[in-house]
Amino acid sequence: MVMTQRIAVLGATGSIGDSTLAILAAQPQYTVYALSGYHRLDKLFALCKQFLPKRVSVPTAAVDDFAQRLSAAGLDIDVVGGEQGLIDIAVDSQTDTVVAAIVGAAGLPSTLAAARAGKRILLANKEALVMAGQVMINAVKMHNATLLPLDSEHNAIFQCLPLAIQQDNIQIHQSEHGVRKLWLTASGGPFLQQSFEQMQQASVAQAVKHPNWSMGQKISVDSATMMNKGLELIEACHLFDLTEDRINVVIHPQSIIHSMVEYSDGSFLAQLGSPDMKTPIAHALSYPNRIESGSQPLDLYALSGLEFIKPDLQKFACLRLARQAMQAGTQATIVLNAANEIAVAAFLDGQVRLTDIADINEQALNDIQVPPLNETADIEDILTIDKIARHLTDKLVAKLA
Amino acid sequence: MVMTQRIAVLGATGSIGDSTLAILAAQPQYTVYALSGYHRLDKLFALCKQFLPKRVSVPTAAVDDFAQRLSAAGLDIDVVGGEQGLIDIAVDSQTDTVVAAIVGAAGLPSTLAAARAGKRILLANKEALVMAGQVMINAVKMHNATLLPLDSEHNAIFQCLPLAIQQDNIQIHQSEHGVRKLWLTASGGPFLQQSFEQMQQASVAQAVKHPNWSMGQKISVDSATMMNKGLELIEACHLFDLTEDRINVVIHPQSIIHSMVEYSDGSFLAQLGSPDMKTPIAHALSYPNRIESGSQPLDLYALSGLEFIKPDLQKFACLRLARQAMQAGTQATIVLNAANEIAVAAFLDGQVRLTDIADINEQALNDIQVPPLNETADIEDILTIDKIARHLTDKLVAKLA
Repeated sequence: MVMTQRIAVLGATGSIGDSTLAILAAQPQYTVYALSGYHRLDKLFALCKQFLPKRVSVPTAAVDDFAQRLSAAGLDIDVVGGEQGLIDIAVDSQTDTVVAAIVGAAGLPSTLAAARAGKRILLANKEALVMAGQVMINAVKMHNATLLPLDSEHNAIFQCLPLAIQQDNIQIHQSEHGVRKLWLTASGGPFLQQSFEQMQQASVAQAVKHPNWSMGQKISVDSATMMNKGLELIEACHLFDLTEDRINVVIHPQSIIHSMVEYSDGSFLAQLGSPDMKTPIAHALSYPNRIESGSQPLDLYALSGLEFIKPDLQKFACLRLARQAMQAGTQATIVLNAANEIAVAAFLDGQVRLTDIADINEQALNDIQVPPLNETADIEDILTIDKIARHLTDKLVAKLA
Repeated sequence: MVMTQRIAVLGATGSIGDSTLAILAAQPQYTVYALSGYHRLDKLFALCKQFLPKRVSVPTAAVDDFAQRLSAAGLDIDVVGGEQGLIDIAVDSQTDTVVAAIVGAAGLPSTLAAARAGKRILLANKEALVMAGQVMINAVKMHNATLLPLDSEHNAIFQCLPLAIQQDNIQIHQSEHGVRKLWLTASGGPFLQQSFEQMQQASVAQAVKHPNWSMGQKISVDSATMMNKGLELIEACHLFDLTEDRINVVIHPQSIIHSMVEYSDGSFLAQLGSPDMKTPIAHALSYPNRIESGSQPLDLYALSGLEFIKPDLQKFACLRLARQAMQAGTQATIVLNAANEIAVAAFLDGQVRLTDIADINEQALNDIQVPPLNETADIEDILTIDKIARHLTDKLVAKLA
């Protein structure tokens, strides 16, 4: 009696894609309707063979080759390309749910298109909220889309909110329902127990070694500087419609509690689990029901002491900058996000030190002048600011390197 | 526009009464409609002056004196007495909500009467579920009453359940909604770090010294033997309609996480807070809304490591006995509860050792023969078994002492 839910996984070859497809493979009530990939086309081809989607999106230049390859393997799959291909899949009338797992600004147009097509969106693309939070949330509301966060922190908060808020686009500000504060937990990254000076000398290998989660290089560096938590704070402000002062950050090195909601009666509701993305993905896929996720069960009895530490905003200045940017408005968060991407790339490239990232971000935030964003701002205006910020941050880096 | 909720606090002079009235005093949307007290009549009189209830219940022998005292103070309050007085207040058409905070079997008839009158019941009286779980739950369902648990553990579980289960009499068995297990947390009591031999030698003063909560003597001893957690396990089985194998107990010495619900996707939802009964009481009073409780806010940053330990069932045999009784059925849980009350009293009286309590309970559970309880069993049948069990346990104690 259960309707099949047809899923489009945009960013199918990354780690969110892996976890999503592992769940979908075990759950016959879902159909993999479409996939997309960019760099790892061999892996995408293997996924096509395994899941037999109806459509697949690849880089524009790869469309013909990929179509031939599928055809040679006897697979009848419609191949589309580039940004427009992603959008086509996202708005396809056959698509019920879009897993928005493309990393970076490249995921923005298709995620926004999914919102405007009123889809159910499982959101892993951070930029959709950090760069275009207001545009995105407005589109979700106007077109009656459903936004379900996949980030373990935001998903944890979602799970701890009252159903009335969950069903009202998770916009807390409009109907508080006793919610006092949100608490984002952070692992503190690999430098939690080290001094600023040690952090200053850190190699790339040290910086990308995350204690609990296995993640890509960019996000691992963001975790080391805690900019990751800063970006999640900005996301949370948009997603849950709260000002930054109602969202606390607490370092919880064990990463077992994934975030919390504090209520007016003194209750904190927390979501706990193994650090395994399959749990939040399974939650969002099946919401408001629950399915088996195949994640490693949490062995409560085996946990060592769970700790909670106040973040040091001198050492983790990026967290302070994220609050500053959120107070200043969307332009500032776009600038901060762009500057940070350039600064992290420069670190990974050996041009600057790990601790220079915060300095570059701060300079960018204070000095870069961008055109104002008004109420009717759309994605082009956002991408213009992003471009200006990247260009000017490149110059800041060149001066420093 | 909010309707006043009229509250009857049965057991107003105990610690649950104190916390409840502290909240009500600060929340004008509630009216204290009725109070009851038993031992502490001076305190009850003071509460009458402060809250000006319309009705008050006292022991039968005290009705006339108490009425004169109120009258002399110029207070126009209807005084009723004894078990029937409590029932009258519980079923009174003016009573919206009954706070069932009378300790022991004495609270049973009025709590059950409230259920049969379809009231909203804030349940602190453990015996209503341990002795009469099935009768109570059937009455709640049949008369469309609402049962909201005040025990910090059961209240925590309630808060972590899906709304659909919360609104369906919290009967999980009927509609799982992804709930895999419940996790009751236990402090482990004052002997957690001590050997069985040390526990054997424990004085009354050592046994009643609870590390986190301030409670009465009986419940403090139950906490030292972990029978308290055993009784809560039995309560939870009835309250949430689950077999005992789906409820785990985990020792969490810091008493910050008050209990948890484990879901099929690997999520655990937990309720955390200061060890202050005002939080669960405020939650239940205002459910499905939230109000300020006046409880001490939890300072997350000040927490030391939160630990989770598997209970040692040799040392805490009462926990094993509770599971055994739950498997055996209601007769057995009545016997266990009765035997335990007698054994604890004997310990407090210096007649037996702390560790003898489990031995007495086990003997009672294995040896005492009671009449069978059938589907239509009512409170009289339950009280008959309770009486037989007490009488026979007295003999066991006498043999041992």
